[in-house]
Amino acid sequence: MIVVLKPNVAKERRDQLIEWLEGMGLNIHVSTGQYQTVLGLVGDTSNVDMNLIDSLEIVDSVKQVSEAFKCCNRKFHPEDTVIKVGNVKIGGGNFCMIAGPCSVESEEQIVGVAKAVKEAGANLLRGGAFKPRTSPYDFQGLKGEGIELLKTAREETGLPIVTEIMSVSDLDLFEDVDVLQVGARNMQNFDLLKELGHVGKPILLKRGLANTLKELLMSAEYIMASGNEEVILCERGIRTYSDYLRNTLDLSAVPMLHELSHLPVIVDPSHAIGIARMVPPMAMAATACGADGLMIEVHNDPQHALCDGAQSLRPEEYAELVKKVMAVREVSKC
Amino acid sequence: MIVVLKPNVAKERRDQLIEWLEGMGLNIHVSTGQYQTVLGLVGDTSNVDMNLIDSLEIVDSVKQVSEAFKCCNRKFHPEDTVIKVGNVKIGGGNFCMIAGPCSVESEEQIVGVAKAVKEAGANLLRGGAFKPRTSPYDFQGLKGEGIELLKTAREETGLPIVTEIMSVSDLDLFEDVDVLQVGARNMQNFDLLKELGHVGKPILLKRGLANTLKELLMSAEYIMASGNEEVILCERGIRTYSDYLRNTLDLSAVPMLHELSHLPVIVDPSHAIGIARMVPPMAMAATACGADGLMIEVHNDPQHALCDGAQSLRPEEYAELVKKVMAVREVSKC
Amino acid sequence: MIVVLKPNVAKERRDQLIEWLEGMGLNIHVSTGQYQTVLGLVGDTSNVDMNLIDSLEIVDSVKQVSEAFKCCNRKFHPEDTVIKVGNVKIGGGNFCMIAGPCSVESEEQIVGVAKAVKEAGANLLRGGAFKPRTSPYDFQGLKGEGIELLKTAREETGLPIVTEIMSVSDLDLFEDVDVLQVGARNMQNFDLLKELGHVGKPILLKRGLANTLKELLMSAEYIMASGNEEVILCERGIRTYSDYLRNTLDLSAVPMLHELSHLPVIVDPSHAIGIARMVPPMAMAATACGADGLMIEVHNDPQHALCDGAQSLRPEEYAELVKKVMAVREVSKC
Amino acid sequence: MIVVLKPNVAKERRDQLIEWLEGMGLNIHVSTGQYQTVLGLVGDTSNVDMNLIDSLEIVDSVKQVSEAFKCCNRKFHPEDTVIKVGNVKIGGGNFCMIAGPCSVESEEQIVGVAKAVKEAGANLLRGGAFKPRTSPYDFQGLKGEGIELLKTAREETGLPIVTEIMSVSDLDLFEDVDVLQVGARNMQNFDLLKELGHVGKPILLKRGLANTLKELLMSAEYIMASGNEEVILCERGIRTYSDYLRNTLDLSAVPMLHELSHLPVIVDPSHAIGIARMVPPMAMAATACGADGLMIEVHNDPQHALCDGAQSLRPEEYAELVKKVMAVREVSKC
Repeated sequence: MIVVLKPNVAKERRDQLIEWLEGMGLNIHVSTGQYQTVLGLVGDTSNVDMNLIDSLEIVDSVKQVSEAFKCCNRKFHPEDTVIKVGNVKIGGGNFCMIAGPCSVESEEQIVGVAKAVKEAGANLLRGGAFKPRTSPYDFQGLKGEGIELLKTAREETGLPIVTEIMSVSDLDLFEDVDVLQVGARNMQNFDLLKELGHVGKPILLKRGLANTLKELLMSAEYIMASGNEEVILCERGIRTYSDYLRNTLDLSAVPMLHELSHLPVIVDPSHAIGIARMVPPMAMAATACGADGLMIEVHNDPQHALCDGAQSLRPEEYAELVKKVMAVREVSKC
Repeated sequence: MIVVLKPNVAKERRDQLIEWLEGMGLNIHVSTGQYQTVLGLVGDTSNVDMNLIDSLEIVDSVKQVSEAFKCCNRKFHPEDTVIKVGNVKIGGGNFCMIAGPCSVESEEQIVGVAKAVKEAGANLLRGGAFKPRTSPYDFQGLKGEGIELLKTAREETGLPIVTEIMSVSDLDLFEDVDVLQVGARNMQNFDLLKELGHVGKPILLKRGLANTLKELLMSAEYIMASGNEEVILCERGIRTYSDYLRNTLDLSAVPMLHELSHLPVIVDPSHAIGIARMVPPMAMAATACGADGLMIEVHNDPQHALCDGAQSLRPEEYAELVKKVMAVREVSKC
Repeated sequence: MIVVLKPNVAKERRDQLIEWLEGMGLNIHVSTGQYQTVLGLVGDTSNVDMNLIDSLEIVDSVKQVSEAFKCCNRKFHPEDTVIKVGNVKIGGGNFCMIAGPCSVESEEQIVGVAKAVKEAGANLLRGGAFKPRTSPYDFQGLKGEGIELLKTAREETGLPIVTEIMSVSDLDLFEDVDVLQVGARNMQNFDLLKELGHVGKPILLKRGLANTLKELLMSAEYIMASGNEEVILCERGIRTYSDYLRNTLDLSAVPMLHELSHLPVIVDPSHAIGIARMVPPMAMAATACGADGLMIEVHNDPQHALCDGAQSLRPEEYAELVKKVMAVREVSKC
Repeated sequence: MIVVLKPNVAKERRDQLIEWLEGMGLNIHVSTGQYQTVLGLVGDTSNVDMNLIDSLEIVDSVKQVSEAFKCCNRKFHPEDTVIKVGNVKIGGGNFCMIAGPCSVESEEQIVGVAKAVKEAGANLLRGGAFKPRTSPYDFQGLKGEGIELLKTAREETGLPIVTEIMSVSDLDLFEDVDVLQVGARNMQNFDLLKELGHVGKPILLKRGLANTLKELLMSAEYIMASGNEEVILCERGIRTYSDYLRNTLDLSAVPMLHELSHLPVIVDPSHAIGIARMVPPMAMAATACGADGLMIEVHNDPQHALCDGAQSLRPEEYAELVKKVMAVREVSKC
């Protein structure tokens, strides 16, 4: 940590600060510039309140030098993490195609979509059983029954299943789920994250609505520090002042997260965009900038979907997209 | 709901849409303009997926007419809600002063601060026992022990206590707490909100980091629709591209929420600003635009606080502020 | 325009409003729903102040039906606009590669870079002569001299030149420039836009730092309504709460602008990202989602560049990128 | 400037960087921590490209130590600036009340409003002659004629006049205007700012739509560094994801700008909020947190205003507000 003092600070007050910092077990390197003095804090600064120091009258600014995240930091783990779900590998040069409806609605629907997306090239099935909805009056999902229907679809197709968990108290119902998803609204539900650190299954962690990349990585850190190292990061659009589109898909997060962390990074263009016909170009763009996979909403009857039909592709549109995505991936790999 | 069609839509396709909508039990008013046709949907549109209709090729745009929130809507409940906590009234012309440290640290600390803020004029005591922290490596609060210490402080001072709940599974520990707080990061933790709808205690609901006013009201609606009508709304700063301050305190939320809803609206300037010396002017501003109360961090020893010391006032600064706030309130009441 | 009245509005007040609107020469269609009444305004509503009506006590909300932009609207011009600059075509299935340094610094530099980028596959040369800088103490460009050097580079290579104009009063100096660029900070400098409507040259219009797509199109409309239909739209990143990157490149703007408008849409990943090693993945992503071209900073000696060296590719890196971009374009075309 | 190197950088590469920096005439202080090395750059760093250094492979991060703004920096000018316009003083404990219509429409209108606001307590008259409008099809102001009408209103009332300048080429028309306003969209029109540095009149500089406080101060710096030290800063709302209000009024900018700079800071709540009935609470809030004045839209006939009628107060509402504002100011002064 580096502390920049204001110009013309009285030596006495400066020394007081240094003494206080040394009292915390730190070594202080003093560097006196033409106008300002800079203190370098060496040692374990994890208990030092950066904001507090920043608020002291004699301090101009404070800068953290060491990284806040460790388990997910590429500096300490240069190799890509590869996560295995059944026969599917995610990360480290492997590309995953997760597809399925926003909500599980019926056996016929989920099995039908599962077969269609498998046929089209998907290797994981998604479907919402527990649905986080802004309004308490909107359809909240089939819950436990939805998970059972997902398992049926898995039996029929062999596709591993991905579905969202919203609460620690539902954990028992997810025992036989392959990948547990944490939704954007729960990205900083720290109690849930800690609990998922004790689950021996991959966690698909979506970036929150207005969270920074560092916050996303810190949330991955919660899961990993609790013992579960299988975290898949997912960019799904952030909130801005966008007028025509629901959210702003932040694709530059893909190469940046790859630089900062060894975890796989996938992209969900469907939620970010909210308009089915814009999903294919954004899926191709995500692939071109190096995403390790795509999560895409597919529904066999979007006009009658109980949730987010507007952003769902039809199976034949998805099949078309998979071909293009594969072609883009082929030429954009380094 | 109003559906605006694109210009020059074939009559056949228009009629198809109308038929489909009528199939949902709606009456359709057709209004043919010079360039465009507008459909007015009358009846129960709660099952109609606005985004889906918006995505149809022949549709230009869709507009919701009726309000999404009902329980907290001033249109349906013109009178201000007044919430009673012990002898303290919140809302409807009553002003509450909630004060205390970010975290409960020890009996000495919390009792000391409680006495000091009571002396200064506070009528509720706040203190964090469960702390949501971005980093898993930061101090997470004294948890159950912290709540016990808050109760001790209540015994000593008579001040009712306000503290944050992060998880449904901790609910038992909060049985004897007076007001349960939902933090910004959990504003859309819908499972928690629903559960708090069954608790017979006031809920202080903080606005999420980047949530709109409508989303805040929809989250209040979750609690109220589950049976608990005692919700206090709290503005605490939103995320923008602010450079010198942590968040942007959105004070215009105060009069706007008062217009939209009958619930009390309080302001927490400490978290939004993050710098103690900026808290007093923003507290006065919040009072001047009609807030029903203030939640302010006070610590007897900010330099050694385990959390957010930088934004805490000292008791004597708080006492000074209370006087000014009262004077501003006196002259700005309508 | 559609005006939704509040529930239970007195007939008298409703009729008053209708009369007032009719007084503006409009025909009013009244549609009475179960709870609310909706007025459809037919005729020339361009003089109607939507905000004013929205603020009337009896009005719930107002909705614009007809589009605010006309000249650049795809509804009225379904065919793609193709802009010709010398032998280069932009838009309508043609792809342009604009490259060059942030600032023109010397004849040696600009001619050297021009030759290198031409060799690599660029078909237009960019270079800043007038530089908008946040600080008055930063290098402001070589101005007129810079433009002369760009012309020299054009002579040597045959590449048409693109450079930014910041003020109407400099217009004479740009007489022999091929494409005039309007920077992000001037996107709503309406006096400049109007003046550029009288210039018989293509205008490259960059999206402002925090402007919506509609505002970008309205600014294009300023130029086009003044007589110049050759406008190239350019996405260059928007301001959010991004932590590791300078701006957030909003690639979903590409397909959305293509749907809304017939104008060509190019992307400048260099400014948005600010880190040279992140430029190639984002350039490929922009190509994959359908951009009509790329504007990329290339400098022969980034470490000694007078401006934005950090985001400049070296010529050999650019040559490498062009190959990949061409491959991505090949497979992602519909 | 401080440069933090990555861990385990080879000594050779580190020395290369140091040598290069010394080649720019700087002295380098090397501070070797447990994990990382920190370089302190002492001397004139104004020509050092911070972004470039940040992008070097061996560099972890870079931090600016000295302030970018000087003329407007309170560190170098601790005393408040007081600006005199006729008999009116702005800043340094003086409070100014600027009022008038969004647009000047006719002699009757502007003289009428001027008399009314003077009567109510205003001490400066505002009125738009040149209007920046998002759409080229909207009313653009009476231009030169509007300025003449403002002068007439000044003659009738004695109130000095404030009006917006959009272009350097109109400067002659403003010769007899008392205060020149730079609108939000032109905050970074650097050519205009530089020119206003040569004008011997106070400049009212509005914060841009999505600009940071530092950028606002850097724009003030453009004017001041060119020779004009009379700059009034104005907060007018920033762009966020606000749903019910046009912009988010950032009142915490008031105390923060006062800490950073010695310039007066006023607030324009009318544009930020866009709804007349919300203007009074926000005007009082601005006063309570220390603003040096208010700029408020007043129109004698808001329903027929040619521009922004929705946000204008009627003269009698303004008179009511002035009383409350004065009372709030009285009690909130330190």
